[in-house]
Amino acid sequence: MIPRYSRPTMTAIWSPESRFKIWFEIEAHATTALAEIGVVPKAAAETIWAKGKDAVFDVARIDEIEAVTKHDVIAFLTHLAEIVGPEARFVHQGMTSSDVLDTCLNVQLVRAADILIADVDALLAALKSRALEHKLTPTIGRSHGIHAEPVTFGLKLAQAYAEFERNRRRLVAAREEVATCAISGAVGTFANIDPRVEQYVAEKMGLTAEPVSTQVIPRDRHAMFFATLGVVASSLERLAIEVRHLQRTEVLEAEEFFSEGQKGSSAMPHKRNPVLTENITGLARMVRGYVVPALENVALWHERDISHSSVERMIGPDATVTLDFALARMTGVIEKLLIYPANMQKNLDRLGGLVHSQRVLLALTQAGVSREDSYRLVQRNAMPVWRGEGDFLALLKADPEVTAALSLEQIEECFDLGYHFKHVDTIFSRVFGNKAQG
Amino acid sequence: MIPRYSRPTMTAIWSPESRFKIWFEIEAHATTALAEIGVVPKAAAETIWAKGKDAVFDVARIDEIEAVTKHDVIAFLTHLAEIVGPEARFVHQGMTSSDVLDTCLNVQLVRAADILIADVDALLAALKSRALEHKLTPTIGRSHGIHAEPVTFGLKLAQAYAEFERNRRRLVAAREEVATCAISGAVGTFANIDPRVEQYVAEKMGLTAEPVSTQVIPRDRHAMFFATLGVVASSLERLAIEVRHLQRTEVLEAEEFFSEGQKGSSAMPHKRNPVLTENITGLARMVRGYVVPALENVALWHERDISHSSVERMIGPDATVTLDFALARMTGVIEKLLIYPANMQKNLDRLGGLVHSQRVLLALTQAGVSREDSYRLVQRNAMPVWRGEGDFLALLKADPEVTAALSLEQIEECFDLGYHFKHVDTIFSRVFGNKAQG
Amino acid sequence: MIPRYSRPTMTAIWSPESRFKIWFEIEAHATTALAEIGVVPKAAAETIWAKGKDAVFDVARIDEIEAVTKHDVIAFLTHLAEIVGPEARFVHQGMTSSDVLDTCLNVQLVRAADILIADVDALLAALKSRALEHKLTPTIGRSHGIHAEPVTFGLKLAQAYAEFERNRRRLVAAREEVATCAISGAVGTFANIDPRVEQYVAEKMGLTAEPVSTQVIPRDRHAMFFATLGVVASSLERLAIEVRHLQRTEVLEAEEFFSEGQKGSSAMPHKRNPVLTENITGLARMVRGYVVPALENVALWHERDISHSSVERMIGPDATVTLDFALARMTGVIEKLLIYPANMQKNLDRLGGLVHSQRVLLALTQAGVSREDSYRLVQRNAMPVWRGEGDFLALLKADPEVTAALSLEQIEECFDLGYHFKHVDTIFSRVFGNKAQG
Amino acid sequence: MIPRYSRPTMTAIWSPESRFKIWFEIEAHATTALAEIGVVPKAAAETIWAKGKDAVFDVARIDEIEAVTKHDVIAFLTHLAEIVGPEARFVHQGMTSSDVLDTCLNVQLVRAADILIADVDALLAALKSRALEHKLTPTIGRSHGIHAEPVTFGLKLAQAYAEFERNRRRLVAAREEVATCAISGAVGTFANIDPRVEQYVAEKMGLTAEPVSTQVIPRDRHAMFFATLGVVASSLERLAIEVRHLQRTEVLEAEEFFSEGQKGSSAMPHKRNPVLTENITGLARMVRGYVVPALENVALWHERDISHSSVERMIGPDATVTLDFALARMTGVIEKLLIYPANMQKNLDRLGGLVHSQRVLLALTQAGVSREDSYRLVQRNAMPVWRGEGDFLALLKADPEVTAALSLEQIEECFDLGYHFKHVDTIFSRVFGNKAQG
Repeated sequence: MIPRYSRPTMTAIWSPESRFKIWFEIEAHATTALAEIGVVPKAAAETIWAKGKDAVFDVARIDEIEAVTKHDVIAFLTHLAEIVGPEARFVHQGMTSSDVLDTCLNVQLVRAADILIADVDALLAALKSRALEHKLTPTIGRSHGIHAEPVTFGLKLAQAYAEFERNRRRLVAAREEVATCAISGAVGTFANIDPRVEQYVAEKMGLTAEPVSTQVIPRDRHAMFFATLGVVASSLERLAIEVRHLQRTEVLEAEEFFSEGQKGSSAMPHKRNPVLTENITGLARMVRGYVVPALENVALWHERDISHSSVERMIGPDATVTLDFALARMTGVIEKLLIYPANMQKNLDRLGGLVHSQRVLLALTQAGVSREDSYRLVQRNAMPVWRGEGDFLALLKADPEVTAALSLEQIEECFDLGYHFKHVDTIFSRVFGNKAQG
Repeated sequence: MIPRYSRPTMTAIWSPESRFKIWFEIEAHATTALAEIGVVPKAAAETIWAKGKDAVFDVARIDEIEAVTKHDVIAFLTHLAEIVGPEARFVHQGMTSSDVLDTCLNVQLVRAADILIADVDALLAALKSRALEHKLTPTIGRSHGIHAEPVTFGLKLAQAYAEFERNRRRLVAAREEVATCAISGAVGTFANIDPRVEQYVAEKMGLTAEPVSTQVIPRDRHAMFFATLGVVASSLERLAIEVRHLQRTEVLEAEEFFSEGQKGSSAMPHKRNPVLTENITGLARMVRGYVVPALENVALWHERDISHSSVERMIGPDATVTLDFALARMTGVIEKLLIYPANMQKNLDRLGGLVHSQRVLLALTQAGVSREDSYRLVQRNAMPVWRGEGDFLALLKADPEVTAALSLEQIEECFDLGYHFKHVDTIFSRVFGNKAQG
Repeated sequence: MIPRYSRPTMTAIWSPESRFKIWFEIEAHATTALAEIGVVPKAAAETIWAKGKDAVFDVARIDEIEAVTKHDVIAFLTHLAEIVGPEARFVHQGMTSSDVLDTCLNVQLVRAADILIADVDALLAALKSRALEHKLTPTIGRSHGIHAEPVTFGLKLAQAYAEFERNRRRLVAAREEVATCAISGAVGTFANIDPRVEQYVAEKMGLTAEPVSTQVIPRDRHAMFFATLGVVASSLERLAIEVRHLQRTEVLEAEEFFSEGQKGSSAMPHKRNPVLTENITGLARMVRGYVVPALENVALWHERDISHSSVERMIGPDATVTLDFALARMTGVIEKLLIYPANMQKNLDRLGGLVHSQRVLLALTQAGVSREDSYRLVQRNAMPVWRGEGDFLALLKADPEVTAALSLEQIEECFDLGYHFKHVDTIFSRVFGNKAQG
Repeated sequence: MIPRYSRPTMTAIWSPESRFKIWFEIEAHATTALAEIGVVPKAAAETIWAKGKDAVFDVARIDEIEAVTKHDVIAFLTHLAEIVGPEARFVHQGMTSSDVLDTCLNVQLVRAADILIADVDALLAALKSRALEHKLTPTIGRSHGIHAEPVTFGLKLAQAYAEFERNRRRLVAAREEVATCAISGAVGTFANIDPRVEQYVAEKMGLTAEPVSTQVIPRDRHAMFFATLGVVASSLERLAIEVRHLQRTEVLEAEEFFSEGQKGSSAMPHKRNPVLTENITGLARMVRGYVVPALENVALWHERDISHSSVERMIGPDATVTLDFALARMTGVIEKLLIYPANMQKNLDRLGGLVHSQRVLLALTQAGVSREDSYRLVQRNAMPVWRGEGDFLALLKADPEVTAALSLEQIEECFDLGYHFKHVDTIFSRVFGNKAQG
């Protein structure tokens, strides 16, 4: 996470100020719950809320205390006592640092997930809008980078839409994975803290109680969370690579928006480079890279060790901020993507009709020619076209073995582009529901 | 995947014989559907089923044909024609190889997921049984590898149970991710094949139709599948490391079952090593390692490229077979684990009562001593005990600042082990439901 | 590692037969050394060599014994005793299994490295030959997938040559990393085995003695080895992606060789797909994936644990066999690559002279126009060309601000293609040495 | 990279100020070289040095310009012109941004490598000093976490020393990998810049000229660099885990230094946790995680794409800063490590003499008992000891089959601890050279 690839809403979640505010809320809610079950005085809980609620926690002061205690939660509690006064001794009763730290981390991850889900929603909206716009714009489908058969540009975007709808569902599931709270005390036995406190804090913080924690919330949850971000990032990379391919000079079927004032190259003024999607490609690598340490974080020793902590201090912000930025950047790319239907048509026409080879093959088979012979007939007329030595339709019409099986009219029928788009509606209904047909 | 770490049921899914059988079923179901909508003769579809249903596909023969055609599905279809006769020309009408390959891969992954889910069920049963057995067996909880406060051995296993219940849910979700079928023809437009064929084949093969495929089923699904296996493997590693720690010479609270005839070391006959859980630790690393290429497989070019194929030919079997083996091995470890409550008690007693330090701290605070002073009082009596220079209870009783706040009786009460277990029932209900209380 | 992507020479290194043969050699050499220093009878050592040298070790029998002892080296030694007779009791004196296993693994990795180095040599030869052949074949250089300035096709291959020469050096270093032998007994103290035995065995097996082993050879060596394979694989991917890009329909500057009989697509007979380089792309992902578990293998517990073993049983063969296959496949691709200079020229001409924009920019600057003004002048004439609305040279000649600074002749000079190739010789000398100029 | 785990010297390398200073040096040296070969006026080059040498580049101003141009090098050059005046138009002649960016990155990586090498030197010094101090301190060697045979604590540290000496060599090699400079202009042809400029700048910046660049320096170099950091981090993790194991309550053979004022746990005042080495364990995961994107960065498209850039903006600082911090932290841990020889002896004595089992086995074999019988005899006397039912020496002396082969004196001789240390000198000479014997 670096400022260059960060957006403030997501970054704010991870600021020390946010963290201390969440810590305060957890501690204060816990104190309220303790007061309700009679462990601490109600007045103390009220004082804590009253004095702490709008307090601005002094990050520098807390750092200063931590330099001595070498323990961040103790440093915070010491500072809280400076704000709240003697009632502070009722704070954190029976709790352990992890109760605060782990619940806080999950609050942060849940908030981050909410932003990421909203990001995906924005991307979905952009994809849908452009997909409907280009629902029937013909373009060549490519397998292996080689022209295959016609598709529409809308279908390409519909595919991306469906993929990000899956990613949305995955993010919702990932959010649920980490939406738990643990206030279970040392080694998670509730020996010194009543389970009702956990229940209360969980509810107040928008979480559910972790069924069994061991001082820490189990890290398989977080592993699943970050692995999901890695999948979303990989989908982004797929879409980014699609745009990069479409913008290649020889293809030029679409292009990232290029603002006035922008300079593509310090040396070559004509350049218009797909730098946004290249950037997203790199960011996707980063988010994927964070999956590995997240998986390694699961196997903590016994009830807990703290090796996960340094990892999470980094990948917590790094993965969520980077993915947020990449998603938002991609939404901008799609919204403003320059799309060139004329170039698509030009590319479609490029192969002298070869894209219709399969249809000819099928027509031959249906006319009674064996599959092997049909393949041979098509291939021998296709190869010269591939070498630029002729037009596929003309060659077929001149091949007596072909015309023995198909009339000239039947051959020509195989070259109808519309034939390929007859199920676009079906696919759009599957992806967007019935409204997509309007 | 190597025979040493493989089990036959899972391996069988990935044999060429299984693959060709699934290919046949997909092709034959598709032909039936084509016959139903009148594209091919019903009699042809019937002949195909009649002759192919119990056919044994000759793997060597198919390999031989592939050596020439360099295309596996064409090789299979050629061989199928040798078995079925001229009606074979109605097979694969309007389809492309990926329709067969991708649907087959998903059938295999779904079957693999079913085995993995059953594996987790067996592990859950073992964990539950041993958890209930040791629900109240006292043992020391450790944070950072250092004695913290008492827990029960049952709690350790309940934690693992809850973790694998989550993993079960994740596997069910992962299974659903890949339970799709695509019979959409070249570049996925259905130009040459009716979507009803896909619907029919999907149903027959226990799958749902992929809403929008692009000749291939999108690989974000498989990335999510393999990422999930990586999380499950990481949980296995956690449990494996717990056993390895418990079996350490100095700890020896539990031990892998050691059969007669087994030799721990060629050089040191006394050795009894946790080799099964060490092995699982290594296998977990492998399954995690497969996540990386699975994530890289998502960003195929345009409608498809075939770079994913070599990866999946390897990690398809490698990840599922390895995880199946590791899960089953772990179930055996847990079922037969030698558990030593007496050693647990010995270790619990080791720190001269220091494990009760927090309770003393709380008692002091509740008696009105400030948190900082309480901490100082506890720490100054704890440190000599840590150095082996005294008994914690005795020292506290002899500290006038402590006895000023607490009576001797109150101090002694802090050393009651049962105090830590009062919420074990609560936790067991959360994890196992009410039956766990029986 | 699967047969489909394996070559027999590399696979043979990892067969049980090879392994047992290496084990025998290590044990027998050690016995000879023990005899020389008088620990065991010389006659015994001679008998062991005499009877074991040409013995065929019965893999099935060893597996059978291991099923009881659950220890592979003990099983082997038991079988060896069946072959050698009572003198077998002098074998393995003071040694531990790891002495045999780790030294054997390193022998295998060294042999694998030798094959990989030879593979790279073959690839280098292919690259050099094609580079010299196309040293001055003009083609467009692309940055961001966008036409930039002219290069030669030979330069592209020279770059790959230099990269694989670096990879060769890395493989030599990686080979040296693992070319060590440990015969140091339990926990590596030589308590029961004289260090001279290690020295002797090391020399005989073509290795050096590990300075300090702890029963096992430290795994940072193997981590470095597999990480190096990951880098080589990534270079292969780079070259594979270059070929895939060049073969794209719209680019078609080069093409994988396409044999008669080969079928590109079961459905589309015209297709000629870069399937070999796509395959290499996938294989590269796999080799990279093995880096992660290799790195995790370093942190063994204390003097050793055995978690590394299952990982190495898999990635030892998997990574070396896969990389060997991919390197050899790439060599074939390069040797037989179909190269189309005419298409390269066509693509070069495509942008109406825009590739010369930088040269115009420099000419303007040298004629005294400010950098900012020069950039603006070039860009305003480039943009219409980019949109297909004119020829760059013509537009420049018609721009009075341009002609105020440069004569028409000076403008035309900027469009000389040869200008870009004046340092090709320099670069070729740097890469291939002086012979490249011949 | 976060402030918590950063050290200023390393962080400074990656500040915008450092970057712009390096950019200036590259540009200014290039201008000097251009002046020497007569392309630009010598006076201009002198002015640029004179005005730019001590200039403080205004980061905010450059950011402001970049917000418009969306190109960082152009923004810098614009700002440079503000400082230098009209002579600025001679800067960057014939160069492309990558010439500056890639050369700068390599300068930064080389400087980072220098710090990392110095870090390793400091760690080596600490390891050596403690190794010599405890050269003959007896402690138990453990395989699989189970007591094996005696070693010395010095041997443990000597092993780590040897491992980090390898890591030092690897870092030196990694430094050399990235110590290259490219000033080769667009797509690397030197069309607009003389190769002598590159040579000159390389020398001035302490680099060598990249033999063939393609506008960018090839990223296999950087992949190797970051992969090497991943290996070093994994070695750190190994050492960290050793310390964590030694500090476990039941083992307590060594302990991280624990300062006054430090609080181990907010809830449990007696805790002394190995938090530094746990932290290093997590940091090692991070550094390893960065290897994956670095490997993925190799396969850029054609002559270059810019997907690597965002990755390097993050992992450049992240990996080097994190590893620097972890190395320095580890040096502190080793220097101040509390080492408890008495506890080591207590643990050594724990197994009732079982650690001598192999020696008994060897003695039996040498006395003519078959290997199988010897193993059986040792194992049957070892098992009761393992179960805490007796003393190994006493049991052996009472076993008639044992005493039939060995005299009581011979049995007792097997229990001599010193026997295990007779080759410590040999190993120390291998690791530290002859000085280690002093």
